[in-house]
Amino acid sequence: MNALRVALLGCGTVGTEVVRLLHEQSDELAARVGTRIELAGVAVRRPRRHPELGDLVTTDASALVARDDVDVVVEVIGGIEPARTLLLEALKAGKSVVTANKALLAEDGAALAEAADASGADLYYEASVAGAIPLLRPLRESLAGDRITRVAGIVNGTTNFILSAMTASGSSYADALDEATRLGYAEADPSADVDGYDAASKAAILASLAFHTRVTSADVYCEGIRDVSAADIAAAAGLGFVIKLVAICERTPADGTYPESVSARVHPAMIPAGHPLASVDGAFNAVFVEAEAAGQLMFYGQGAGGAQTASAVLGDVVAVARNRVVGGRGPRESTHANLPVRPIGSVPTRYHVSLDVADRAGVLATIAGEFARHDVSIAAVRQTGGRGDGEGDARLVVVTHEAPEAALAATVEVLSGLDAVRGVESVVRVEDLGRTAPEVGT
Amino acid sequence: MNALRVALLGCGTVGTEVVRLLHEQSDELAARVGTRIELAGVAVRRPRRHPELGDLVTTDASALVARDDVDVVVEVIGGIEPARTLLLEALKAGKSVVTANKALLAEDGAALAEAADASGADLYYEASVAGAIPLLRPLRESLAGDRITRVAGIVNGTTNFILSAMTASGSSYADALDEATRLGYAEADPSADVDGYDAASKAAILASLAFHTRVTSADVYCEGIRDVSAADIAAAAGLGFVIKLVAICERTPADGTYPESVSARVHPAMIPAGHPLASVDGAFNAVFVEAEAAGQLMFYGQGAGGAQTASAVLGDVVAVARNRVVGGRGPRESTHANLPVRPIGSVPTRYHVSLDVADRAGVLATIAGEFARHDVSIAAVRQTGGRGDGEGDARLVVVTHEAPEAALAATVEVLSGLDAVRGVESVVRVEDLGRTAPEVGT
Repeated sequence: MNALRVALLGCGTVGTEVVRLLHEQSDELAARVGTRIELAGVAVRRPRRHPELGDLVTTDASALVARDDVDVVVEVIGGIEPARTLLLEALKAGKSVVTANKALLAEDGAALAEAADASGADLYYEASVAGAIPLLRPLRESLAGDRITRVAGIVNGTTNFILSAMTASGSSYADALDEATRLGYAEADPSADVDGYDAASKAAILASLAFHTRVTSADVYCEGIRDVSAADIAAAAGLGFVIKLVAICERTPADGTYPESVSARVHPAMIPAGHPLASVDGAFNAVFVEAEAAGQLMFYGQGAGGAQTASAVLGDVVAVARNRVVGGRGPRESTHANLPVRPIGSVPTRYHVSLDVADRAGVLATIAGEFARHDVSIAAVRQTGGRGDGEGDARLVVVTHEAPEAALAATVEVLSGLDAVRGVESVVRVEDLGRTAPEVGT
Repeated sequence: MNALRVALLGCGTVGTEVVRLLHEQSDELAARVGTRIELAGVAVRRPRRHPELGDLVTTDASALVARDDVDVVVEVIGGIEPARTLLLEALKAGKSVVTANKALLAEDGAALAEAADASGADLYYEASVAGAIPLLRPLRESLAGDRITRVAGIVNGTTNFILSAMTASGSSYADALDEATRLGYAEADPSADVDGYDAASKAAILASLAFHTRVTSADVYCEGIRDVSAADIAAAAGLGFVIKLVAICERTPADGTYPESVSARVHPAMIPAGHPLASVDGAFNAVFVEAEAAGQLMFYGQGAGGAQTASAVLGDVVAVARNRVVGGRGPRESTHANLPVRPIGSVPTRYHVSLDVADRAGVLATIAGEFARHDVSIAAVRQTGGRGDGEGDARLVVVTHEAPEAALAATVEVLSGLDAVRGVESVVRVEDLGRTAPEVGT
């Protein structure tokens, strides 16, 4: 069998490691696969930065993809264009694609999947979510005989590093972000991470695979961590919770109002300190999966890093090579369930609301009345700081039971306009993520 | 495409769930796979116990396997025979096999793999290790482009339940075993679990996949948990460790004495309380994987149970069905590394030794001298209980640095014969499992 020839698009942190691993493991991979895996060329923007690549380097990615001697295109450029055009060209020509491009997959994965199906090429993207953690293959293949009901994960290392630092030291968001930037965990422009967009792309990919339904980044409700305060984290700790930026994908059975549907959202949430995800600290990622027969599973590891991501890329390249050796192909896109995406307003959640209120008679009754009027049931309430003389402010904390997001948001909106409410200090969602979760960690 | 026809061998806890899931998810699976998956027949020993199976039931497993309309054989009988003969018949006839049979795979997986390769049939066995946790597919496929250096896991729920109970309550082994039996976590004859044989089979399967080398159960060093005492667990806690029954598979680089080699062993060990595996309690399983590029990964979930194991079986059946639809096949056995198995005597480990010694001058010097004579370096020593009057006993605890198992065992052997040593109270291995392990759990 002829060697499998790889065109690599991009040679930054991940690409460099792909080149290294292909080189160092050349003989091992050949023995494992039954054919050699060879680098046909590497497309980069600035060839002078890559003298080690010698003749392999090119600036013309499109010509590299089109070359007759290229069998598989590995894309680690990122971003929508030119990646989309290049990968569609490859797939249309029957060349398999391995990509780590979460943004592209979340925005337009359908176009890639259709092009792959049309030509019979493989499309693999394990590296696009949670770096080295084998997660997409288990969802796509190992759990293909089960019904997944929820995928909930910490899938962004930068925000998890920041929130872990805030939790450990009591520092502010700004200070923790500075530390993350200094240590290289956050980029100079941290928006894609701290505003939740990176996690939202991953949520779209996870929901699509888990629920056999096309979910795009536009379907994912997204809130970042900029507004999480040291006080929020302290309040969570007092209740036995920790605050994490979570990506939550759920399949919800039909109820009186909505048909069976799926939802995907990314936002900071208080999760129980005993939940397996609560103790995932620093730049680590972890994803918790619940399925009807398999029960609760967790996958844990390093979600980013050049070598880690390259490991996932190479696993996919080996899969393409093995498929070629035996004449098969990997699993196709599975969208048979084709469930509607539930609008965020109807997704049930819980709120932890912290209010500065006037310290006078009747305030609690008024506020409790607004929750009731919106059909939101209160789980716990705590008032502190009042002097009891009818002057000054008091702090009122309300934790709700589950209610539709829209009802909760509307309640907070009304509260913020009340005379008795001096200010809405914070609103943080509370997520139990399967109350019966076994406790990992003590 | 014609339906994929499944012959099910065995209909106990797991088989019953396989039948249920195939029935309940019939339409979903067909949509997902592109062909229907149908039950062709179910071989059982006592057909009267399975009235719900109607005409599907048979007592003649061999005839069922041989039927022309059977495409895939699912085996959940367990044990070596008749499972081996039946599965070899199936594979020779070109029928794919999905099995949960860890004992057979660990003893004679090579015969199955060779029969599968000869006929081009698929051989999948995700359910044989750690129940529903997707683990073998990640090792075989996701990490196929990486070098795995260590797999360490809690892969037996019964023993983990017992050790967790002893740790939580301070109870004796006998009491914890009674509780496990009462709650259905331990069988009437618990030997396969508590003596470590079940975990050893799984270690053989894991080591084979991780290191591309055939490792059989005979290659796995195996010690059970019967001798773990409440005092051992208390001693571990005092040092910041917990005792777990761990399966450890390692690839060790060449050193002066041995070439590059692999080892696999199952024994109780003290592991650091901050290690991710330490907080896996009750009947849960978790497996920690280290690879050169991917770094540290952990897989966590329910390692047993009918529905959980059936989920893994069905994932494999779907893989067989998808391979059939596209004309491919799953990954073959990969044994290219073919590394020698390191004898247990040369595997480096650490000991925690607890001795009853005479309370008189010179005893510590004698004992320390024996460790030195065997080239075993002492990491910590603690003496308690001596009255200082030269009469009576004292307790001496020694924790060593890493040394070859054989040197450690020889040292303990000599110590037990010394006049000054009244008794060797306990010997427990200490395993750091990658000291740099991130802490999951607090």
